[in-house]
Amino acid sequence: MRTKTRSHEWSVIEEGFHPARHKASESLFALGNGHMGQRANFEEKYSGESLKGSYLAGIYYPDKTRVGWWKNGYPEYFAKVLNSPNWIGIDVEVDGAELDLAKCPASDFLRVLNMKEGTLSRSFTAKMPDGKQLRVEALRFLSMANPAVGVVRYAVTALDDLRLKLVPYIDGDVRNEDSNYDEHFWNVLETEAAPGEGFLLAQTRKLDFRVGFAMRLELDGARLEPVCARTDLRTASAFEADLRKGATITLTKYVAVATSQDHPKDSIKAQAGAAASAAKGTGFDTLLAAHKAKWAEIWSHSDIVVEGDVEAQQGIRFNIFHLNQTYTGDDERLNIGPKGFTGEKYGGSTYWDTEAFCIPFFVSTAPSRVTRNLLIYRYKHLTMAIANARKLGFGGGAALYPMVTMNGEECHNEWEITFEEIHRNGAIAFAIHNYVRHTQDEAYLSEYGLEVLIGIARFWAQRATFSPDKGKYVILGVTGPNEYENNVNNNWYTNTIAGWCLEYAREALDIVERHWPARFRDIVARTRLDRAGESARWAKIAAEMYYPFDERLGVCLQQDGWLDKEPLLAADIPAGERPINQHWSWDRILRSPFIKQADTLMGLYLFEERYDFEFIKRHFDYYEPRTVHESSLSPCIHAVLAARLGDMEKAYELYLRTSRLDLDDYNHEVEEGLHITSMAGSWMAIVEGFGGKRVRDGKLFLHPQIHKNWRKYAFRLLLRGHPVEVTVTRDGVSIVYKGPEPVTINVYGVDYRAVPGKVLTVPGAEARNGQALMTAARG
Amino acid sequence: MRTKTRSHEWSVIEEGFHPARHKASESLFALGNGHMGQRANFEEKYSGESLKGSYLAGIYYPDKTRVGWWKNGYPEYFAKVLNSPNWIGIDVEVDGAELDLAKCPASDFLRVLNMKEGTLSRSFTAKMPDGKQLRVEALRFLSMANPAVGVVRYAVTALDDLRLKLVPYIDGDVRNEDSNYDEHFWNVLETEAAPGEGFLLAQTRKLDFRVGFAMRLELDGARLEPVCARTDLRTASAFEADLRKGATITLTKYVAVATSQDHPKDSIKAQAGAAASAAKGTGFDTLLAAHKAKWAEIWSHSDIVVEGDVEAQQGIRFNIFHLNQTYTGDDERLNIGPKGFTGEKYGGSTYWDTEAFCIPFFVSTAPSRVTRNLLIYRYKHLTMAIANARKLGFGGGAALYPMVTMNGEECHNEWEITFEEIHRNGAIAFAIHNYVRHTQDEAYLSEYGLEVLIGIARFWAQRATFSPDKGKYVILGVTGPNEYENNVNNNWYTNTIAGWCLEYAREALDIVERHWPARFRDIVARTRLDRAGESARWAKIAAEMYYPFDERLGVCLQQDGWLDKEPLLAADIPAGERPINQHWSWDRILRSPFIKQADTLMGLYLFEERYDFEFIKRHFDYYEPRTVHESSLSPCIHAVLAARLGDMEKAYELYLRTSRLDLDDYNHEVEEGLHITSMAGSWMAIVEGFGGKRVRDGKLFLHPQIHKNWRKYAFRLLLRGHPVEVTVTRDGVSIVYKGPEPVTINVYGVDYRAVPGKVLTVPGAEARNGQALMTAARG
Repeated sequence: MRTKTRSHEWSVIEEGFHPARHKASESLFALGNGHMGQRANFEEKYSGESLKGSYLAGIYYPDKTRVGWWKNGYPEYFAKVLNSPNWIGIDVEVDGAELDLAKCPASDFLRVLNMKEGTLSRSFTAKMPDGKQLRVEALRFLSMANPAVGVVRYAVTALDDLRLKLVPYIDGDVRNEDSNYDEHFWNVLETEAAPGEGFLLAQTRKLDFRVGFAMRLELDGARLEPVCARTDLRTASAFEADLRKGATITLTKYVAVATSQDHPKDSIKAQAGAAASAAKGTGFDTLLAAHKAKWAEIWSHSDIVVEGDVEAQQGIRFNIFHLNQTYTGDDERLNIGPKGFTGEKYGGSTYWDTEAFCIPFFVSTAPSRVTRNLLIYRYKHLTMAIANARKLGFGGGAALYPMVTMNGEECHNEWEITFEEIHRNGAIAFAIHNYVRHTQDEAYLSEYGLEVLIGIARFWAQRATFSPDKGKYVILGVTGPNEYENNVNNNWYTNTIAGWCLEYAREALDIVERHWPARFRDIVARTRLDRAGESARWAKIAAEMYYPFDERLGVCLQQDGWLDKEPLLAADIPAGERPINQHWSWDRILRSPFIKQADTLMGLYLFEERYDFEFIKRHFDYYEPRTVHESSLSPCIHAVLAARLGDMEKAYELYLRTSRLDLDDYNHEVEEGLHITSMAGSWMAIVEGFGGKRVRDGKLFLHPQIHKNWRKYAFRLLLRGHPVEVTVTRDGVSIVYKGPEPVTINVYGVDYRAVPGKVLTVPGAEARNGQALMTAARG
Repeated sequence: MRTKTRSHEWSVIEEGFHPARHKASESLFALGNGHMGQRANFEEKYSGESLKGSYLAGIYYPDKTRVGWWKNGYPEYFAKVLNSPNWIGIDVEVDGAELDLAKCPASDFLRVLNMKEGTLSRSFTAKMPDGKQLRVEALRFLSMANPAVGVVRYAVTALDDLRLKLVPYIDGDVRNEDSNYDEHFWNVLETEAAPGEGFLLAQTRKLDFRVGFAMRLELDGARLEPVCARTDLRTASAFEADLRKGATITLTKYVAVATSQDHPKDSIKAQAGAAASAAKGTGFDTLLAAHKAKWAEIWSHSDIVVEGDVEAQQGIRFNIFHLNQTYTGDDERLNIGPKGFTGEKYGGSTYWDTEAFCIPFFVSTAPSRVTRNLLIYRYKHLTMAIANARKLGFGGGAALYPMVTMNGEECHNEWEITFEEIHRNGAIAFAIHNYVRHTQDEAYLSEYGLEVLIGIARFWAQRATFSPDKGKYVILGVTGPNEYENNVNNNWYTNTIAGWCLEYAREALDIVERHWPARFRDIVARTRLDRAGESARWAKIAAEMYYPFDERLGVCLQQDGWLDKEPLLAADIPAGERPINQHWSWDRILRSPFIKQADTLMGLYLFEERYDFEFIKRHFDYYEPRTVHESSLSPCIHAVLAARLGDMEKAYELYLRTSRLDLDDYNHEVEEGLHITSMAGSWMAIVEGFGGKRVRDGKLFLHPQIHKNWRKYAFRLLLRGHPVEVTVTRDGVSIVYKGPEPVTINVYGVDYRAVPGKVLTVPGAEARNGQALMTAARG
């Protein structure tokens, strides 16, 4: 059942408790702070349908996948996002009966995700089996200021005289829903309890990750000594008190986690204990204030305001909020899983989603170290990417990055993806380019980027083979971004990005050679680069690459053989058969002409400066009607292109689809978790689509349009570290730049001087609607 | 390590015990009788490397495969060939120490598979840890005359004074090596023991197959009362005796099995017990004589004699022997698993191997009921094949037979095979045609065949789609026989057999309509056939089918895009990288130009009458050098074509490769089991290849050639039920026909009258070498 939440500018609000929607709400109201996160499970026991999920960044489980059929080169395991010990739990007993909303009717139930401040609150009145009532007000947050700390405040007001027992606990008896044989992935090594305190140490059954959770408890409104209630699998304290009608008892649970990712194994206990004690010492109000301050800072350079369309406003903030909850950019070992901290699905943490979707968001909205850390993550995996390519038969330092990874090793095993969806290599190279064109940090190329680009160029140079029949270089047996085609020849997107990589690697060689000659010599030696020979070969392959094209239609063909497909459009699919991936067998999908997600159009999006308006329009008009958008990564790219073509109605429709995908549960799957990485696409739809924002050589280009439903919208950027706020109304665009000195900003193809502290105004936003963004401005 | 056996005309002989070769020998020396079978595991305990395997036809385990990634339409399970309770076991103790050849040195070890009589014997002298020696002579057989019965005779001679304990048992504590998590697949429901008797009843944990094993024991050479030694998982009797040096004790173990396949569950115990008692009552010698008589009968119409080349002789008999051990054709619920009763690998029982390889063997060497039962097996699965096609989006009675099945349901889950290797449907239709052209039993079409052909034709008519670009019907997204290409468009073989199926279904409609009009009306009504409309549509699609062809090369192209591959030959693969399926990742194999097995050539083999000598030669010369023969089903087809083209050297080389594939362990995998289904290909290589045998409209055509290494070869056939023996020497061909009246047999393109009881002689076999079999004779 779909979640029905109330629209609100800054919050997600659920009024009334609807058990059938609970799992979906657990996803929507999830919290995270980049280092840990958790679904919005209840603190108190809940015996109804629920997906328990509490996750720690970088802690995973390499689960066995080798059953049934197997291919050479498959990894032995699939890295599963690991449901970790539950630290939010508080059992509640009233006169000896358990509070459980699956059994005790709740009224005045309200759940609020405050996105401005990063808190989850919940309140309700519950009626116990004996008829007595109590009121619960719960609030929790995962500190953005101190990512090892989470706090739960749980206040109970007696509405009748009653005896209340509270048992806050940390529980190591947890499972993954996606375990194959219901097996446990954790050993609990130690539990300890003292009055008002507790500690639990757990170990993953493979890889020996250790995690320690310490809790410190504070009780207001009762003066009872707590009782320890430890078992081998959990630590707990129990508080019991007789409450008179109207009395309130407030429990504050401070929890700190320490893991072997960050601490020596033998210091985990001390570390967690000290952090929990410090948190309690600091106190709830101060901790919360620091947390809010961090969120205020994040919003200050990433917020988007939409006036006149509360659904659109809520949608974009929901997306920006979850992206920032998932990744904070302070640890280059971490990355952005497709479901972040909101579910188990997809496992692994890193897909090409990061480079193709998240980096465009972070490179514009976060300090440059955030994107840099995402890039360095891949740099650190270069050796493993070279080893991965070797497994597939490539030598000489060729690198193929994994399709799905946790630590740099491939951990996916569908051959058509693992081995063939190689365009990911292109996205990783393009992200380096994107970072450099935004930041002008060319030093990054010499420090890290060039080695990655060399590895990737070498891969393409070997992977492309010469077809005597075509007299061109071809790339056989690939899966493009449109995963509804497998093992095809000459996927236009893949060939295009491969050719671009070969050229860009040559460009990067030149840049580093020119500016950092010593470092260049070092890299050449280390990579055993044949400077002249390899570079010449890359140039030749790029120049002689084959690109399928149909003269009659005037369009680039998604792949060889594309025109053999039946001439059907997505509109021809019977309504009851969509999404086709839930109704059709795989072979039927493959031979159909239906496109899962932007593929050829993705290439036009990335390399738009190469093509004129008519060319892009012809492709959009040809491919869009054949696209079923069954990947969450699809509508946003189409939205950007539609806006670029001046089709604001289409752009708006696709924007809503992407930004409210989870809030409105388009695909009936939000209960499994949120589509974190595609959320960056919603941001792209507004900023790159409606706002027409581009950055080239560090210079900002804008071409804002405004949809008729909106009175105004405003977005914030960091331009080489300095804030820019762009406000678009129907009348015009106003730009506030806060850098140290004036910069040139191009609006509607005209260069303007933006002076810090002064508002730059350009008239006529609505008048520009439908007027295509000028290609010249991109060149 | 490869097994090294001694070559012998009628036997496989292993001299000396080589633990490193033991698992391979367990495969080579396996026994079966069509209903049960077993690897050549030792009777006594063996703690070294061994693959325990005892199998019952039709008893399988639907093991869970749903872990990791999944596609719509996949079956939930994979049918595993099930290792069943071990009924051959006899523990041997000497002075309290266990006889175990992994620990007790053996001398004079001899293992003999007598293929003429269907027995496995083994003898050795073992030295116990205390230095005492004993001599063991064991013999066993699985009765061909009474397929529920197996007999082990185990004789121990004391070479020193010693105390001997024998514990014959039936053990239900068995596992599959391929279980994913080492789980058990059996529950043992009952064990019972009485002096000299035992019974065990087991149940599969899924599907509730029940199997009961009863044993009756006979002891010669000692007069001791046996002691029962039952546990919950096994039944046993123990005999103990003091033997003086030179004394012999002989234990005979009669075992009968009854299963819920053949008996009501509550009568299994009585049934097994009665059968075991009857076997003991009949006695060893009589049972063995009946068993040998059955084998004599089998050899009388299937033997091939080769003189002057003992390796070739042994190879072909080994193949014929195992085929007949695996399938006897008296139960249409059974079929032929790729590993028969010799291993777990591949699971399932039925692949297209049956129709494409085994039926050509059985239709010529066994009574027609054998092939008929194989065909009826598919007829009985028609409803499930229609349901299977429906899962893939086809309606209107279209049938897609499963790629791998036990009971008619698909039980394979690799999408590129399960959903796309649809040419299997063609093999099933072709087998009907092959049966009819051998037997002239057109009534089979009206009884069973036509309905299958209609379902298959309907499938192809929907599966082919019209390409506006080509103006032809295309078949997109398939895997051909060459499984080193996946999801390709317009596989020439698939398109060819699809077109043929559409035509043959129309022909079959005409035949049944003409000769069995009432039955025809019944079929039309039952299948809701639009007689005129569907038939016309099939004709149109067949006529307008697209066949990829290159004018410059003059060859049919294996699939669209074939010419984009690198122009390499199999000889270019570095030796250390073969077989490529053990060295290369899947994507590399897919984009390579290397062919796993006959694909385009398979089509030329099936439809050779359509093509002239030059055309076939051009294709053979083009495709053969690109074929790596990494399927056991490949060399035989090439051998037949090579012989047809008069290239006896190539034909001989490929014959040896196919017939001694397991004996010489070409692929280093014989320890997993034998390649049963491809053994039929060895027969094809000699009879259809060297002998040039074809049968069309019930008429036999021969075109014998003889390789220079051979003095003589002879093969036996059944021609419409009547024996034919063809003997080929360098000088000529002599044919003995044993039917009731004379028939016309065509030799070297000339019709001869073969009179029963008279030898028909045609001169000049060696002289015909290299002279191509005339196409006219096939037309």
